Amino acid sequence: MKTPVKVLAVVFLAASNGAAAVDQTPAPSHGVAYPEGWQNWATIAVSHRTDNNTLRVILGNDAAVQAARTGNTNPWPDGAIIGKVVWKDAQLQDWQAATAPGEFVHAEFMFKDSKQYSASHGWGWARWTGLEQQPFEKGMQVCIACHTPVKHRDWVFTEPASLP
Amino acid sequence: MKTPVKVLAVVFLAASNGAAAVDQTPAPSHGVAYPEGWQNWATIAVSHRTDNNTLRVILGNDAAVQAARTGNTNPWPDGAIIGKVVWKDAQLQDWQAATAPGEFVHAEFMFKDSKQYSASHGWGWARWTGLEQQPFEKGMQVCIACHTPVKHRDWVFTEPASLP
Repeated sequence: MKTPVKVLAVVFLAASNGAAAVDQTPAPSHGVAYPEGWQNWATIAVSHRTDNNTLRVILGNDAAVQAARTGNTNPWPDGAIIGKVVWKDAQLQDWQAATAPGEFVHAEFMFKDSKQYSASHGWGWARWTGLEQQPFEKGMQVCIACHTPVKHRDWVFTEPASLP
Repeated sequence: MKTPVKVLAVVFLAASNGAAAVDQTPAPSHGVAYPEGWQNWATIAVSHRTDNNTLRVILGNDAAVQAARTGNTNPWPDGAIIGKVVWKDAQLQDWQAATAPGEFVHAEFMFKDSKQYSASHGWGWARWTGLEQQPFEKGMQVCIACHTPVKHRDWVFTEPASLP
């Protein structure tokens, strides 16, 4: 996309189909700046959590996608940003046995910088909640606690999906 | 990604993690040329089909993503290409209640051109199967038959996911 989605969202708001207008850059989360443009990042994987009934797409910036597709993920390289976009489960209108994205929940990110984030295992942990993208400020430790089972794989749950 | 995935896949094949080397452009499917670079297209939606146990990400070229995010989808504009990438269900290694992409099944596409494809409801229907991306050649009618329940929504099942 050459035209930023944000601009399109504002211009076409009247015709909008679920595209929210975040009309200024959201404030940082845990001191981590908002990763502008993540909506257009390429896919690393998808997942469906049946314990909390959410669907996810896992995206990456260029560095993360290149690392994912070349098996360079333990550790992930400095500069990689991995994003997880989460929606509540809904049923697809015209295919009964398909679960599709319902309400947008949040977008959360891991920013790899082994020096800058040495105190948090080499990652900056951040999340923005809801279509209004409110920064999560409960502390990186909340994120790290949940990710501890995967500390042996550089703290990342995602297994890059197989692609041609 | 400024560097084509295909080049990266060849260069880094020894370290590859599920990235196949399609070392030449796959042959057309139903006369439709292979949409190079779809692996880096932005996300329109995801889905999980529980009738055949597959996970999907729905991607789009720039025209399709712009249309999806501005509610311009009935009809979709000429030039839009929608891609559906399908994997068999697998369990995520480190989170028992998460379904994640297993074996890659196929990538299938709808190419909107109301003149060129007027005989097939304004869409070119194509699919490439497996990591080797073998063209599907059983006829567009196979695709159209399954999509008939959504002819009232320009033949597309996907509802664009809500995004900030």
